[in-house]
Amino acid sequence: MAKKKAEKVSKKKKFPGAKRAPGTSPGTLNVDASAPAPIVHIIAYGPDTLDERTITDLAELEGLESDVVWVDVAGLGDAAVLTQLAERFGLHPLAMEDVVNTHQRPKFEAYADHYFFVARMLDHVGNLDVEQVSLFCGKGFVLTFQEKPGDSFEPVRERLRRTRGSIRNVGADYLAYALLDAIVDHMFPVLEVYGDHLELLEEDIFLSGGGEPIVRRLMHYRQELLELRRSTWPMRDAINALMREEAEYFDPATRVYLRDCLDHVLRVIDLVESYREYVSSLMDINLSVTSAKLNEVMKVLTIIATIFIPLGFVAGLYGMNFDTSSPWNMPELGWAFGYPFALGMMTTIAVGLLAFFKRKGWL
Amino acid sequence: MAKKKAEKVSKKKKFPGAKRAPGTSPGTLNVDASAPAPIVHIIAYGPDTLDERTITDLAELEGLESDVVWVDVAGLGDAAVLTQLAERFGLHPLAMEDVVNTHQRPKFEAYADHYFFVARMLDHVGNLDVEQVSLFCGKGFVLTFQEKPGDSFEPVRERLRRTRGSIRNVGADYLAYALLDAIVDHMFPVLEVYGDHLELLEEDIFLSGGGEPIVRRLMHYRQELLELRRSTWPMRDAINALMREEAEYFDPATRVYLRDCLDHVLRVIDLVESYREYVSSLMDINLSVTSAKLNEVMKVLTIIATIFIPLGFVAGLYGMNFDTSSPWNMPELGWAFGYPFALGMMTTIAVGLLAFFKRKGWL
Amino acid sequence: MAKKKAEKVSKKKKFPGAKRAPGTSPGTLNVDASAPAPIVHIIAYGPDTLDERTITDLAELEGLESDVVWVDVAGLGDAAVLTQLAERFGLHPLAMEDVVNTHQRPKFEAYADHYFFVARMLDHVGNLDVEQVSLFCGKGFVLTFQEKPGDSFEPVRERLRRTRGSIRNVGADYLAYALLDAIVDHMFPVLEVYGDHLELLEEDIFLSGGGEPIVRRLMHYRQELLELRRSTWPMRDAINALMREEAEYFDPATRVYLRDCLDHVLRVIDLVESYREYVSSLMDINLSVTSAKLNEVMKVLTIIATIFIPLGFVAGLYGMNFDTSSPWNMPELGWAFGYPFALGMMTTIAVGLLAFFKRKGWL
Amino acid sequence: MAKKKAEKVSKKKKFPGAKRAPGTSPGTLNVDASAPAPIVHIIAYGPDTLDERTITDLAELEGLESDVVWVDVAGLGDAAVLTQLAERFGLHPLAMEDVVNTHQRPKFEAYADHYFFVARMLDHVGNLDVEQVSLFCGKGFVLTFQEKPGDSFEPVRERLRRTRGSIRNVGADYLAYALLDAIVDHMFPVLEVYGDHLELLEEDIFLSGGGEPIVRRLMHYRQELLELRRSTWPMRDAINALMREEAEYFDPATRVYLRDCLDHVLRVIDLVESYREYVSSLMDINLSVTSAKLNEVMKVLTIIATIFIPLGFVAGLYGMNFDTSSPWNMPELGWAFGYPFALGMMTTIAVGLLAFFKRKGWL
Amino acid sequence: MAKKKAEKVSKKKKFPGAKRAPGTSPGTLNVDASAPAPIVHIIAYGPDTLDERTITDLAELEGLESDVVWVDVAGLGDAAVLTQLAERFGLHPLAMEDVVNTHQRPKFEAYADHYFFVARMLDHVGNLDVEQVSLFCGKGFVLTFQEKPGDSFEPVRERLRRTRGSIRNVGADYLAYALLDAIVDHMFPVLEVYGDHLELLEEDIFLSGGGEPIVRRLMHYRQELLELRRSTWPMRDAINALMREEAEYFDPATRVYLRDCLDHVLRVIDLVESYREYVSSLMDINLSVTSAKLNEVMKVLTIIATIFIPLGFVAGLYGMNFDTSSPWNMPELGWAFGYPFALGMMTTIAVGLLAFFKRKGWL
Repeated sequence: MAKKKAEKVSKKKKFPGAKRAPGTSPGTLNVDASAPAPIVHIIAYGPDTLDERTITDLAELEGLESDVVWVDVAGLGDAAVLTQLAERFGLHPLAMEDVVNTHQRPKFEAYADHYFFVARMLDHVGNLDVEQVSLFCGKGFVLTFQEKPGDSFEPVRERLRRTRGSIRNVGADYLAYALLDAIVDHMFPVLEVYGDHLELLEEDIFLSGGGEPIVRRLMHYRQELLELRRSTWPMRDAINALMREEAEYFDPATRVYLRDCLDHVLRVIDLVESYREYVSSLMDINLSVTSAKLNEVMKVLTIIATIFIPLGFVAGLYGMNFDTSSPWNMPELGWAFGYPFALGMMTTIAVGLLAFFKRKGWL
Repeated sequence: MAKKKAEKVSKKKKFPGAKRAPGTSPGTLNVDASAPAPIVHIIAYGPDTLDERTITDLAELEGLESDVVWVDVAGLGDAAVLTQLAERFGLHPLAMEDVVNTHQRPKFEAYADHYFFVARMLDHVGNLDVEQVSLFCGKGFVLTFQEKPGDSFEPVRERLRRTRGSIRNVGADYLAYALLDAIVDHMFPVLEVYGDHLELLEEDIFLSGGGEPIVRRLMHYRQELLELRRSTWPMRDAINALMREEAEYFDPATRVYLRDCLDHVLRVIDLVESYREYVSSLMDINLSVTSAKLNEVMKVLTIIATIFIPLGFVAGLYGMNFDTSSPWNMPELGWAFGYPFALGMMTTIAVGLLAFFKRKGWL
Repeated sequence: MAKKKAEKVSKKKKFPGAKRAPGTSPGTLNVDASAPAPIVHIIAYGPDTLDERTITDLAELEGLESDVVWVDVAGLGDAAVLTQLAERFGLHPLAMEDVVNTHQRPKFEAYADHYFFVARMLDHVGNLDVEQVSLFCGKGFVLTFQEKPGDSFEPVRERLRRTRGSIRNVGADYLAYALLDAIVDHMFPVLEVYGDHLELLEEDIFLSGGGEPIVRRLMHYRQELLELRRSTWPMRDAINALMREEAEYFDPATRVYLRDCLDHVLRVIDLVESYREYVSSLMDINLSVTSAKLNEVMKVLTIIATIFIPLGFVAGLYGMNFDTSSPWNMPELGWAFGYPFALGMMTTIAVGLLAFFKRKGWL
Repeated sequence: MAKKKAEKVSKKKKFPGAKRAPGTSPGTLNVDASAPAPIVHIIAYGPDTLDERTITDLAELEGLESDVVWVDVAGLGDAAVLTQLAERFGLHPLAMEDVVNTHQRPKFEAYADHYFFVARMLDHVGNLDVEQVSLFCGKGFVLTFQEKPGDSFEPVRERLRRTRGSIRNVGADYLAYALLDAIVDHMFPVLEVYGDHLELLEEDIFLSGGGEPIVRRLMHYRQELLELRRSTWPMRDAINALMREEAEYFDPATRVYLRDCLDHVLRVIDLVESYREYVSSLMDINLSVTSAKLNEVMKVLTIIATIFIPLGFVAGLYGMNFDTSSPWNMPELGWAFGYPFALGMMTTIAVGLLAFFKRKGWL
Repeated sequence: MAKKKAEKVSKKKKFPGAKRAPGTSPGTLNVDASAPAPIVHIIAYGPDTLDERTITDLAELEGLESDVVWVDVAGLGDAAVLTQLAERFGLHPLAMEDVVNTHQRPKFEAYADHYFFVARMLDHVGNLDVEQVSLFCGKGFVLTFQEKPGDSFEPVRERLRRTRGSIRNVGADYLAYALLDAIVDHMFPVLEVYGDHLELLEEDIFLSGGGEPIVRRLMHYRQELLELRRSTWPMRDAINALMREEAEYFDPATRVYLRDCLDHVLRVIDLVESYREYVSSLMDINLSVTSAKLNEVMKVLTIIATIFIPLGFVAGLYGMNFDTSSPWNMPELGWAFGYPFALGMMTTIAVGLLAFFKRKGWL
């Protein structure tokens, strides 16, 4: 059963980032037709107001009166919607291209009127699920683009609704931080899944004595942890870059929070590296256990054979057909107790060998 | 068959870069006589005009009226052509030497009147095919030198022809960027080939149970990925160096595009490193699978032998020729059911051993 | 028995840092209800006075007259106490959050009115015991928060009580240094435990000939050393950062002492890395010894079998039933000394083989 | 034969750099008495003149009228000659000590009146031959000290004689560059030898199936490549340092050539690293092939044994001596077709086992 | 015997640096009571005078009239002597603590009035012997503290006595350099011992075919080389730091000599790294040779068994007791040449198998 699961796992495309149509003009929106259609969800708020709805007509954006508007787009399957939003908020074409081409490394880029941040949102439903989140933050607005519905942002929405913390009193920059922090914090439960799985796998190795299904599962985790690594390491540089930026629409007071967020990223990276080292350890253990088990088998089998081969020789000896009329030819055959003598000899040999093996510590 | 292919592969010269005639005066053009003759293709354009043709007489270059001229030379087999072009555009002799000596690492060098960029253009036709592209960019001109016809530039030519993007409104520096970007973007489909091959190879390992042909193929990919690495890592430094340069003929606005290009290079490097790690994993898997398979074989064989050796001993026992006139000498031989008794004993032993092995989990 | 111990060991949660409730507002004190209740111990002192007591009412803090007050809180189970202290000393909410969330990496952070330092305090009682210590240092006060009672600070308390060194003449910054130094110095005996255990383990490998319990113990140490590494490496950066800070409440003269403390941290790191390399060596040795032992067994067994199989063949030979009426059919059977001849032949074969194995150096 | 060669190879002193008489006053010339006597060859030239000869009396140096004089000393066995030259050109004692003590790492050092450059000149005659070249470059003079006659400088001499390039029109600094470049360029054919040898070795591994001679050869190349590494990596830093220096006797225009030379060094380093990685790969292949070959052998042998052991059992069965007067005791023995029946049974068993092995893919 | 030696070796304390009494006041001199009593040796000199003696009363230091005084203390067993010296020369308490606590890493520290340098002096008498040397250098004085008598400084003393070099004309800073250089230069013969031992060990591996004693010796060298590494790497940073310092009592002219000393340290580090890589290679070779040897044994034994098992089967065949009255039952038994026929059959089988193995290249 473990085997079947492992096989299914290996069917998954391992290096999705390799696909990219070369040579198109930079800034072109090559929307993947099979991507889900965008669902546009907005939350417009000020200290005292909160307007939350899912809109179908982007014109609704015009009428909003609020300090900060957060437009969350889940699904990238409609170029028209994306283009309209880009025009409405003055987003840079190169950045928009990166939004659609969803295999970016986490990164931060500063444009004239807005910041652009790419993060990778983790989830674990059976397998690792990595989704690109593109975040724009400008004066009074935050835009987030996700590949599909379902995200790590629910706690932030809750805080906005309940006026928890002072989140509604501060600007879009703080919201951007809160979203990044939510993404990073959601990595911890995902990583915890790996911790649990790997400890389980360690037990399985000792129980099952290793073998191919274990190797496949280890390989699978190794690949996923490699992807986790690629999804988290560049976050560090990106947040660092964001902290060093200065812009009128980004309050320096937010930086102390970003430092906290960076700290969490470092802990995530620490965990990922620990897991990677753990997987290497498990590989070593697996090798160790597999070969130990085989050695055990071979040893016992060889010992059995080693004891019976001399016994067989003795039996063969007295099966020889020498002419017993000569007194030199196997006189034992004529003895009254020849057979018990032979059996005794065999027993002696067997016991002697067993004692020898015992003394050597091979049994 | 897989073996044959692997052997053919290993015939290829593995370290072509080692060859170089030492001690020649720097700046000498030592054209490799066996290289293909140059085909000179020009595209001269401005916002409203486009003049594209393949020329045979370099004098044709003089008559062109355009903002930007792109001279693409495919084939380096004729020193005269190269020297004339170098003189016409004032290219530095050391740079021209690097053009001809086609084992350069990717690099960027700034000369007084022009930039010099060496990149490595990848293709995959059966095997990895790496070609050096030398690119000069000065005021109003871009020169590209390729080792042989066939390149990654077709999308750029298309954009020039169709006025796609605003490429014809901007200068030679943007064209240089577009060409570099085309080279980088073309790396993705090449890398994708590796992703596919390696996944196939993983399946093959599990199917075939490993072995020498697998090792040869893995070694082959390892070598090619090493070459890919050498072809891509220095690109990062080269583009970084280009971004830091300042020159009147290089518009700062182009830098934001170079940043995008650099981003793609980083993703290429990421992929190459992932593939390299994948190959290591496959090596481990191959070792694991090969030894697991052998162990399986040995175990079964040893179990068969281990069962029959004790049986053979019993048979030998009753083959002994003790004088059965004594009642102590093998009375079983005289029993009416002696033979069934012996067979029963053998069956008991065989079943007992099988049960023992079963209980131990060796079967 | 070793196995049982190892199994108990592996039950321990290996990656405790993975757990964290995502999405809460930053600066919230999510006290773990199962944590021990805080015991607040204060030492208020000046050159001539020392007031040491365990308080239950934080109001007692107000009446203190002294140059420096050190409040040590052991146990983080009561949010009210922590909040009151934070308000009393003006501690930053983000820092307080880190105090409660006890899986921080060692770090240093400068806030407007106080420094915040997170260290990890090591102990070894059966297993490695790592506890987070959060230290605040401001004008005239030092606060330390520990996860549970029992710490490395006793020598510092002794020095304060006995006016040893000039510790009571200098400010809170020196006390902060002394506490950090006590934490670092207490790492040495803990590390010594590992040195002893590993040397013992090396002996065990050679004595027991390796095997699964050894692998489990090695894995266990590898995990603990990895945790030690995570607990010590960031200390270096943290102390470095502290040394570079400038603040009125931190005397530059303390820096030369910090340099000394940093030096100790470097030695701790050196040791941890040595132990890690030692564990790798032991892994190699274990593999070497295990396989050497198995090889020894297999060799002896195979030699026994190899000697008896030819002997058995000879016995079988003379067990054949050819009609001895023909003079060509096994005339040996009719010889008077046929049996001694056969025995001699067998002895010759056995001795010959033994001599051959001896000469080859296989015995 | 391969073994013999390998043994001869391993006789060579592996770490010659370890030898050094400690504690002598710095700047003392401890000439190795067994070193060859110096042969002093001079080339004095200007744009229109060239005076080339081998001198025996250093006084001849005084009469020379030329822009640049290049004194090449091959052989370091005579302290007097070296001391005179050092005085004549004002060379620093510490530098002269390094000239004689021929195990320096490549390095660059700037003294008040001259530059000092140590490089390692490679050759490959059967084995790797590494020789130290010490180069001094001051106003109007270049001095080179080699350990023994025979060098990589012949192409430079040819260029000087033939006025190839403009080498005779420029100063001593350009000559110094040309000599360094000649050393670096001569590394390529040496490295090519390794490329060829390693590819040959790869074929040998597959042909011979691995083994000890292969291991010895791999070890030998690994050692030599390590030495190549030590001889080339520091060149990069040394040339970089030289490029950053400023002195009146070193024309800035020479720097663009040094950049080219540095580029070649980088390619050499690239190649050395590739070869080192190739050697690691070959180690892996060797292990793989060796164990695959052994496995093949063991598998076939075990299969043969496994088939014959059951057959032997059947034969033993009918060799039992049960009293056939009872109808239950081996009635087969009395059958008319008992023997064909037994043979048929054996054939069936043998064919059955072979079919089983075949189906399992073990044959 | 090799085993016994190896065992003795492993008794040595492997990680001496782990021991340290935590929590003492910084700057306290915790003298190890078991350390040897100090022997104070002084050399006071100027260009024309030299006063060398071993003193027992530190008051003798007062009467000295000389430019430079070098006080060498061998043995750290008496706190009173150390304290007096520290007071006499104004040495910093933290530095004095490091002098006594002899497990420092090599380091350089600048104090107001003097430099403090910790180095590790190597010796090899049977095993590696590493001793801490603490060196203070101030205006007109150099103090060296060694753990025990016996050092690398004799050549410097000789130079002072013989006025070799200009050492007596220059200041204390030059003496400090000369002592450091003597320590570094003495590392070369120690390292040479390792080179010789490792080459010997390589021969031993091939001769003895590997095994546990070899593994123990390799482990032993690996540990010692790790310690050498820890003793030499930080020297580089320490000397670099010293070169960057500026103080009135340190002549800039000494820096060019320090550069030379740094160069020697780099060569030492190079050698240590080479040896470490050599030890890794030997580990690989040992594994290779051990397994090759075992494989050889197993192969031969299995071949012997494989040949005799079919022969035994044939013998068993003709040992069957079929009733030969039927013409179908083993008519060979009744043939006149049945026995020679059977023998011929056996010979044919044996020769056939041998030929098969030969053709396969297994013999």
